Amino acid sequence: MSRVHALNQLSTRRASGMSRSKGPLVDVHTHVYLPRYAAELRARTAAPRIMNWTNPAGKAEERLLILDGEPNAGRPVGPQYWDRDEKLQFMRKHGIDISFVSSANPWLDFLPAARADSLARELNDDLEDYCSTSPEAEGFSGLKTLYGFGLLPLVPGIEISHILQTIDQIKSLHHVRGVIMGTQGIGKGLDDEALEPVWEALQEANLVIFLHPHYGVDSKAFGEKSNGHVLPLALGFPFETTISITRLILAGVLDRYPSLRIMLAHSGGALPQLSSRLASCIDHDPVVAKRLKHNARYYLGQLYYDAVAYGPEELDFVSGIIGRSSRYGAGGGQYQTQIGSQRLLFGTDHPFFPPLEASQKWQSVEDNLGAIRAAHWNGLGVAAQDDVMGNNALRLFGLSQ
Amino acid sequence: MSRVHALNQLSTRRASGMSRSKGPLVDVHTHVYLPRYAAELRARTAAPRIMNWTNPAGKAEERLLILDGEPNAGRPVGPQYWDRDEKLQFMRKHGIDISFVSSANPWLDFLPAARADSLARELNDDLEDYCSTSPEAEGFSGLKTLYGFGLLPLVPGIEISHILQTIDQIKSLHHVRGVIMGTQGIGKGLDDEALEPVWEALQEANLVIFLHPHYGVDSKAFGEKSNGHVLPLALGFPFETTISITRLILAGVLDRYPSLRIMLAHSGGALPQLSSRLASCIDHDPVVAKRLKHNARYYLGQLYYDAVAYGPEELDFVSGIIGRSSRYGAGGGQYQTQIGSQRLLFGTDHPFFPPLEASQKWQSVEDNLGAIRAAHWNGLGVAAQDDVMGNNALRLFGLSQ
Repeated sequence: MSRVHALNQLSTRRASGMSRSKGPLVDVHTHVYLPRYAAELRARTAAPRIMNWTNPAGKAEERLLILDGEPNAGRPVGPQYWDRDEKLQFMRKHGIDISFVSSANPWLDFLPAARADSLARELNDDLEDYCSTSPEAEGFSGLKTLYGFGLLPLVPGIEISHILQTIDQIKSLHHVRGVIMGTQGIGKGLDDEALEPVWEALQEANLVIFLHPHYGVDSKAFGEKSNGHVLPLALGFPFETTISITRLILAGVLDRYPSLRIMLAHSGGALPQLSSRLASCIDHDPVVAKRLKHNARYYLGQLYYDAVAYGPEELDFVSGIIGRSSRYGAGGGQYQTQIGSQRLLFGTDHPFFPPLEASQKWQSVEDNLGAIRAAHWNGLGVAAQDDVMGNNALRLFGLSQ
Repeated sequence: MSRVHALNQLSTRRASGMSRSKGPLVDVHTHVYLPRYAAELRARTAAPRIMNWTNPAGKAEERLLILDGEPNAGRPVGPQYWDRDEKLQFMRKHGIDISFVSSANPWLDFLPAARADSLARELNDDLEDYCSTSPEAEGFSGLKTLYGFGLLPLVPGIEISHILQTIDQIKSLHHVRGVIMGTQGIGKGLDDEALEPVWEALQEANLVIFLHPHYGVDSKAFGEKSNGHVLPLALGFPFETTISITRLILAGVLDRYPSLRIMLAHSGGALPQLSSRLASCIDHDPVVAKRLKHNARYYLGQLYYDAVAYGPEELDFVSGIIGRSSRYGAGGGQYQTQIGSQRLLFGTDHPFFPPLEASQKWQSVEDNLGAIRAAHWNGLGVAAQDDVMGNNALRLFGLSQ
């Protein structure tokens, strides 16, 4: 894309907002199935897998089945999942300057330990290549358009030392700035004591942990009626994230590793709305309460949140919940007006939630951008919008100029 | 309690708020195990049951086991669960003028249909007696201190006509003003077509439906570490409510019965924070989207919510989500400043979450009262506080004077 075209597009994007934004647009929630990973899925005969399918119109296509028994025989899958040009085209369409790309779920969860171990390293090298050879971000001297979150071999039976070696590998990959992580750990969830050295190493390495759901909750809760993917995606996903981060809090991980930089998918799921109830339930259970240094609400200020909430009221709420967190520290504190908008980060969830017509802008992206523009942000206006749209990401990932 | 004592206490309570409230304090979320129900639980050998237990100090006590495998061998249970004087004493302690009492979970869920059918009617008659013979509410001419939510025999194998007959019974009980309902319906959840006549009859009878959780989500999601009741109560309960009301929305029940008066426990659980995500997921599934008359966010304005959220930010958020709902109707609309605080109602969850010391005021109650006083309520101040603390309840249940 020419520089002039880029600038025209930038001004179009910015003019469409409620107020003029001057900063970069950076996407921290955008997924890829790298070709090596897609090949792994194609070779499988059980979910997760990519399979050939003849659609009702008689056309052969590939379909992605993420979970066994998924409704609608999974979903269409195509180059938007693995082709870097498609990612860059999507970014241009929506005026996104820089993306932090992560493997889509279910990562390596389904693999035997030895295979997960080797594939993690190969995919991290692939991701470094994917990013380091990407075009320069126009207008951002020395920055690339693509950076990434690497993978750790978090599967049952893995030796912790192998996870630590993979963290070392990632530290050496200049364009891989964090790790994406599911909720299962090495089989017992993220509150497993066996993971202590992993948290220590991740804190030490200053890598951003993108905590992302995959399993949802037991689908029996969703009943027998067909609602497509609505219930597992709209509710199951955020519930899983909420449970996982709550278990981390209850296990004292955020007390022991207060500098861990954890970013929660989907704006923290339901944690913000349930955080005062969580604090109350802990208050009523002295065994649990005594284990923690702070009121549960305090920890929400230690976390980062993507801004993938689809509504301005939701963003303002999460921002306020972050802002109030310091009141709940053991030492007390005041509401902080700015911290909320400094810990939310624009994301798209691409290539999921595609538009119903291929030519359209992605409604999911427009909704999330519109929400950032329409939010009140404690009256901080364009400065807060710019933070959420991109400045926070550049700071968090050490790319500020 | 003497009139003078009552007024002194009223002024003490009111002086402790941020601003002076002039209205009644009405509790819409307060539970009872009526003696007949407690006897049923004592006769059982599997959960739910009340069992004799010798505590670690060697003292005999009764314990309530609500679910099999519950942590800590359940919880202590005593007269606060069934003795009306204890309820009235609790109300006096916290300045509560009127309570709308409901059976605590798991209601009749565990009973064979014939037993559930007869016990529902007996317990509804008991509840009418419990309320109609309660003291007059001081300062509220002609009103009692206690009103109630009745029970329907919502269990597998019941004939729908028997549920309808129980609704007829409740209509004849002057002090029973609604029904409390779990999420299982007659075995397939509340989105079961078989329940259509029940919704129709409840709408016609103008009874308030208090939708309340019991089962949470599959406890495997909570992992192996001991966190007492924290995870199932803080997260599982609100997740269950959220799934249930979402399934009702997706099944079109709120389209077909727009005058149903449903009050959600725990301020709607996670529905408010996930409602824009829900709307987006529906938008991306045309089969589901075409089934509904409105954007998912619209339906949140049709609902009522207890104010049992433990924090002012949460209350303001739920209020705002209700306020925005009319924007999302098929015909469009404007944000409504007042509607949010008109659809939230003070509750205590008594006798659950008792204070750690018997002599104390209940922290859970103080938290919820404090949250109502500290919330911003769109700048509506004391008028909104008075609505949430009691005026809304008197209006909703047809007791306004």
